Amino acid sequence: MTESNSPNTDGGGSGTIFPASVYAGRLAHAADLALRQGLWGLVFGTGPELEYLIGSRVSSHERLTALVVPRSGIPTLVLPAVERGDLPASAVPALDVDVQLWEDGQDPHELVADALGLPLPPPVPDTGLAGAVIGVGSSLTADHLLPILWNTRATPVLASETLRELFMRKDAEEIAQLRDAAAAIDRVHARVPSLLRAGRTEADVAADLEAAIIAEGHSAVDFVIVGSGPNGANPHHAHSDRVLSDGEVVVVDIGGTWGVGYHSDCTRTYVVGDGGAPRAATEAWEVLRKAQEAAVAAVRPGVTAASIDDTARKVIEDAGYGGKFIHRTGHGIGLSTHEEPFIMAGNDLVLEEGMCFSIEPGIYRSGRWGMRLEDIVTVTADGVELLTRQPRELH
Amino acid sequence: MTESNSPNTDGGGSGTIFPASVYAGRLAHAADLALRQGLWGLVFGTGPELEYLIGSRVSSHERLTALVVPRSGIPTLVLPAVERGDLPASAVPALDVDVQLWEDGQDPHELVADALGLPLPPPVPDTGLAGAVIGVGSSLTADHLLPILWNTRATPVLASETLRELFMRKDAEEIAQLRDAAAAIDRVHARVPSLLRAGRTEADVAADLEAAIIAEGHSAVDFVIVGSGPNGANPHHAHSDRVLSDGEVVVVDIGGTWGVGYHSDCTRTYVVGDGGAPRAATEAWEVLRKAQEAAVAAVRPGVTAASIDDTARKVIEDAGYGGKFIHRTGHGIGLSTHEEPFIMAGNDLVLEEGMCFSIEPGIYRSGRWGMRLEDIVTVTADGVELLTRQPRELH
Repeated sequence: MTESNSPNTDGGGSGTIFPASVYAGRLAHAADLALRQGLWGLVFGTGPELEYLIGSRVSSHERLTALVVPRSGIPTLVLPAVERGDLPASAVPALDVDVQLWEDGQDPHELVADALGLPLPPPVPDTGLAGAVIGVGSSLTADHLLPILWNTRATPVLASETLRELFMRKDAEEIAQLRDAAAAIDRVHARVPSLLRAGRTEADVAADLEAAIIAEGHSAVDFVIVGSGPNGANPHHAHSDRVLSDGEVVVVDIGGTWGVGYHSDCTRTYVVGDGGAPRAATEAWEVLRKAQEAAVAAVRPGVTAASIDDTARKVIEDAGYGGKFIHRTGHGIGLSTHEEPFIMAGNDLVLEEGMCFSIEPGIYRSGRWGMRLEDIVTVTADGVELLTRQPRELH
Repeated sequence: MTESNSPNTDGGGSGTIFPASVYAGRLAHAADLALRQGLWGLVFGTGPELEYLIGSRVSSHERLTALVVPRSGIPTLVLPAVERGDLPASAVPALDVDVQLWEDGQDPHELVADALGLPLPPPVPDTGLAGAVIGVGSSLTADHLLPILWNTRATPVLASETLRELFMRKDAEEIAQLRDAAAAIDRVHARVPSLLRAGRTEADVAADLEAAIIAEGHSAVDFVIVGSGPNGANPHHAHSDRVLSDGEVVVVDIGGTWGVGYHSDCTRTYVVGDGGAPRAATEAWEVLRKAQEAAVAAVRPGVTAASIDDTARKVIEDAGYGGKFIHRTGHGIGLSTHEEPFIMAGNDLVLEEGMCFSIEPGIYRSGRWGMRLEDIVTVTADGVELLTRQPRELH
């Protein structure tokens, strides 16, 4: 059941993953963090964590795929045999990773326990208390996580806590990916004014935007929000058959997957036609723009995520729109579109160089319109760099 | 924070959910099963379980959405405030369900603990051992499941085990949905021969199939596999820019979402052009077809899932293709495309009337071609009904 691997093959070259040495370094770093924090090892499911550690975008389903990183020794990838065809697209063939294929009818959770190399029987068998602590990936689902815990009798903590510094502080290559992704989504936004015409539906515009996201170099469309008029007041509205009219305010929030898997995400708000926006919207926009720019300007190493949220929120509240900004100010971005650091009240996380996140306050008038202004930023040694750079007009 | 609900509003009518009484009955049944099995309550994340119980297709992300079904009393939906716009599309407004909205910065996991109404402090506080057992939904991810367990100090089991009979045995309305979905995917397969022409790429054909899946009445495309020549030997290949040639064997495995959310799934294998298939493929196909038809004929109440797998596998092994059938024979289908009952070795589950699943043996010649033949069946009182009904020729 163990596949031999080919450590001399470079997994890169296709442009969809980094060179294998990047992943080897990340795996070693993760094991080191686990060791230093007293964990027996780490177990990840599919998703951004797997992509980060071994460059694999194999998708999750009811058959378990799990990467086991023991605190020392060789990592193991537990993979359904039917998925073996996805291996060549990852860095695994070029990494010192043991591949354990399993067939339908086998219990893959036992393979995870074996790969962790936990002492059995458990240290305190009579009480059911486990002696070993393992870190588990955020995206592992209950149907796999619980059988893994039953097989290992280990106590789980979230691996994302253990690996915070690894996941949250992006290195130069990761920031370069996010910068290129941001430039691509900027180019898509530059096309929006020509697409928003009275008589078209939100869905018409969304279809054009999906095509433009790909045309500008993304490998996939992540989401397209076209929220016109009252639909814009629901921050999670996607798009509908609603027909656009002149003078309507339209929220356009778009993002895609770029290069080795990093994401773009940018929101601008537009007005249909050349007649300009209703005065109430124009006034609100000036407040929103000031709030967003103040929050961007407040970003630097050493301040908390909550303080950035507070900066944006205070401008909006002071202008009398307090109850209209109904979500957090932003979210981290990397191999997932939403990740730590979350820029919100209560998050005392201190910002550090290399963190990348959105700043996207909004003002929502239920039944009338919504507006949101979103840029992606990265924390530099002494301040902030804007990655998305489209003009911030309401136009 | 508690939203008033409107129990007199019928959540149905849009055609995308059943009448509210269906969900009310399912919630009551789930609570009753929890009570009878000694559970304190049930906690579900987003996904098919949420869709089954309250008709909501709100999608999962890093903000917790959870449905809490206590063993007695009113269920609670814990929902991010930014998602409130999705409520009207579900049955919730017409159900006796308490809605707890939470804002960014609040801890939603505490709301889950509150909604369960667990006694606090826990029964055996000094040992960390919990007295209460809760059932948790299969799709709850670790980033939510672990904080829920830390907040409740309850012992988790899988709710899918508790609710097996509820989820696996489809009632007449569910089977009607699956039957209609199957008829729609049959109509898509009827178009395939005209699409598979030498010189076209797999991706060209896939794009046409995606359009056809929607044109035949599905609300979404779930997946499109066009595996030509050697690509067909990877059961999880999707499609690529590979160009089709005359005489090549092509696996076409397609499915979509239908009506209130039930799924279609059907595989046929085709040969490009009018010249017929290579003899080796034709011979293998006759074996595969016999295997599939024998497995279908073996379905009836009282036999095990494993026995159906064995029936198909034995025909293929006896004909000398044993190592070439590299996956299980089938999977249940309903609000998710892959669910229990899994038709595979080791699954001693006894089939009962109302269970619906695929029967899809395959034969894969690495580097040359693959073939698979898949129908959806439902177990009747004394046998089996085929839901998909396309001819089973290799053509």
